[in-house]
Amino acid sequence: MFKILKTSKKSRARLGKLKTLHGVVPTPFFMPIATKASVKTLDSADILNLGAEIILSNTYHLLLRPGMEIMKKAGGLHKFMNWGGPILTDSGGYQIFSLAKQRKITRDGAIFRSHIDGKQFTLTPELALEIQKNIGSDIAMILDVCAPYPATRKVAEEAARLTTAWAVRSKKIKNKNQLMFGIVQGSVYKDLRLQSARELMNLNFDGYAIGGLAVGEPRKDMFKILDYVIPELPAEKPHYLMGVGQPEEIVEAVRRGIDMFDCVLPTRNARHGLIYIWSPRLSLRGGRKPTKQSPEIAALSRQGGIARKDRFYDTLHITNEKFKKDFSPLDKNCSCPTCKNYTRAYLRHLFIAGEPLGLRLATIHNVHFYLELMRKIRKAIRAGKF
Amino acid sequence: MFKILKTSKKSRARLGKLKTLHGVVPTPFFMPIATKASVKTLDSADILNLGAEIILSNTYHLLLRPGMEIMKKAGGLHKFMNWGGPILTDSGGYQIFSLAKQRKITRDGAIFRSHIDGKQFTLTPELALEIQKNIGSDIAMILDVCAPYPATRKVAEEAARLTTAWAVRSKKIKNKNQLMFGIVQGSVYKDLRLQSARELMNLNFDGYAIGGLAVGEPRKDMFKILDYVIPELPAEKPHYLMGVGQPEEIVEAVRRGIDMFDCVLPTRNARHGLIYIWSPRLSLRGGRKPTKQSPEIAALSRQGGIARKDRFYDTLHITNEKFKKDFSPLDKNCSCPTCKNYTRAYLRHLFIAGEPLGLRLATIHNVHFYLELMRKIRKAIRAGKF
Repeated sequence: MFKILKTSKKSRARLGKLKTLHGVVPTPFFMPIATKASVKTLDSADILNLGAEIILSNTYHLLLRPGMEIMKKAGGLHKFMNWGGPILTDSGGYQIFSLAKQRKITRDGAIFRSHIDGKQFTLTPELALEIQKNIGSDIAMILDVCAPYPATRKVAEEAARLTTAWAVRSKKIKNKNQLMFGIVQGSVYKDLRLQSARELMNLNFDGYAIGGLAVGEPRKDMFKILDYVIPELPAEKPHYLMGVGQPEEIVEAVRRGIDMFDCVLPTRNARHGLIYIWSPRLSLRGGRKPTKQSPEIAALSRQGGIARKDRFYDTLHITNEKFKKDFSPLDKNCSCPTCKNYTRAYLRHLFIAGEPLGLRLATIHNVHFYLELMRKIRKAIRAGKF
Repeated sequence: MFKILKTSKKSRARLGKLKTLHGVVPTPFFMPIATKASVKTLDSADILNLGAEIILSNTYHLLLRPGMEIMKKAGGLHKFMNWGGPILTDSGGYQIFSLAKQRKITRDGAIFRSHIDGKQFTLTPELALEIQKNIGSDIAMILDVCAPYPATRKVAEEAARLTTAWAVRSKKIKNKNQLMFGIVQGSVYKDLRLQSARELMNLNFDGYAIGGLAVGEPRKDMFKILDYVIPELPAEKPHYLMGVGQPEEIVEAVRRGIDMFDCVLPTRNARHGLIYIWSPRLSLRGGRKPTKQSPEIAALSRQGGIARKDRFYDTLHITNEKFKKDFSPLDKNCSCPTCKNYTRAYLRHLFIAGEPLGLRLATIHNVHFYLELMRKIRKAIRAGKF
């Protein structure tokens, strides 16, 4: 199911491949997000052409719309959205915590109201898996309880406890077509995190996710948690950091032994005109603080043909006045269809004029950037430079 | 420049080819509209893949945004939007009449304020051509005065008189890279229309457009005007019916000797979820009245493998509840990428969920429908069935 091809001598990074019903995916990988059965502005041919090998879709959103009757009649999400590759679905736990109205967590499951029309739903661990079976995803996540940040020890403890109880119930459901992943909770409390990891490990899931991160905690806390949780997880199983993150966070998390990522940043930022570019620049804009350079970022930078600097990428706001007459591509070091065919001045014009094509071309570029980042990371691990 | 390959024995329809700097285009043809340097939701590769051989862009919109300095620096619209095929640009006359604020028409030209930011512009016939030269379009339209509908005889007369005066001035501008078309005005007044046609004909333009139609007049009046204007125009020059129209109007206009069309309907309707389909259905929905069947519509219907009926196409609203579980393509007789890869249920979901991909997939289908209609018309003329 999961095979590790190489383990780094410089860090906990691993190169592997994950086998699913719809194909084998090289790790570490990044999943573009098709929240509502579409990676926003892209069709399934676009996703394939960009080289994405697996995508993520959201159980919560698909449950609300189009709803499970349609999903079943369609023959699952693969057919519905015409995507032949692997799909991972989350369990809905995170969205219930972040989106739903009037949510109530009981021992049995989560009761919540749709953020769209107020309709009430009850989601149990069993139902979350049944829905994911109807969706037909290749990797299902168990229903978990995601504590907010900050959370008191009591709240975090209860979330972790329920997550384990639900994990026990989830493991009783069998589906040979689907891998099933457990989710480690425990907020920022080390003992809770370690206990959660051990409890889930005993249940022998196909893979382990670390949930409840990137919910507002300081970045250094997130890395600290990875530092002590991952060594507790079975090394031979894939490790998934849910909802992360910025490119440098992905690099740092791979170094700590993470194999799988998903994040809305490349797509959402694209729609706001924020573009990722490979860059040798030192200075940072937009209020983000520089990340301390790690050896693997430097290695990655060198590998990308970029002089050794503190950052291996930069961002630009395409609506900026200074791109008005800039007839160069978004990124001269990028081989995506947008950079091969269009200029900064044209994209700026599309954004300023409110042309929907702008969102699409920017999304193509940013998703390509993230997928290329993963290809560079895998290449660096393979070459022993990560 | 324009070569007629075949003239129908059954109608005034002609099959031809129009040579431009960026390629030869078979006539009769339809131009998808790239108002602001983009056929909404489509990139230039999409346009090419759909088989469009020429597109239209709007001088008025490009003048306002991105503006002529950027258009010049970009090296023209072809480079700016990465489209290698022919482009026709209108003169801005129609948009000044329909969109601009505080417009004032003087003997010299049109003074108006931008509908975006209120900035004042003065457009003279000479300037309209200079702008189109900067845009680098293959076919330029002269600046005309488009009378509203209804218009008094006095208003229509003045519009036609000024259009001729500006046509005389326009003809003094030479640009060997661009074809220049005159525009017949005169509203619904036969003598004014004929006089306008004769005055323009004496100036020997590369082609002749019929303007000031599809501005609200009854459809039968439009056809009546075509019936008496087109025989007055030089047969050996291309005839262009601006801003038209519904598929059945295009069929009827080709029958009357029109070679070129443009219209926002396929793209705008797509974004509203209105889809064109090849259909044998008799009934009409949405308040449109049935068109009396002409022999060429019947021929077209037979040619499309559709039983002889009064209408060769139908429309559907993809957001309709009845498509919720309809897993057939938008149109089973269509070979566009949307119909080959996606279902009605999926498109409905995308529209209901507000996913931008829905607009794109619907646009691809509708533009394909219009281009396919023109291919069918040309085939029918070639086969002597039109």
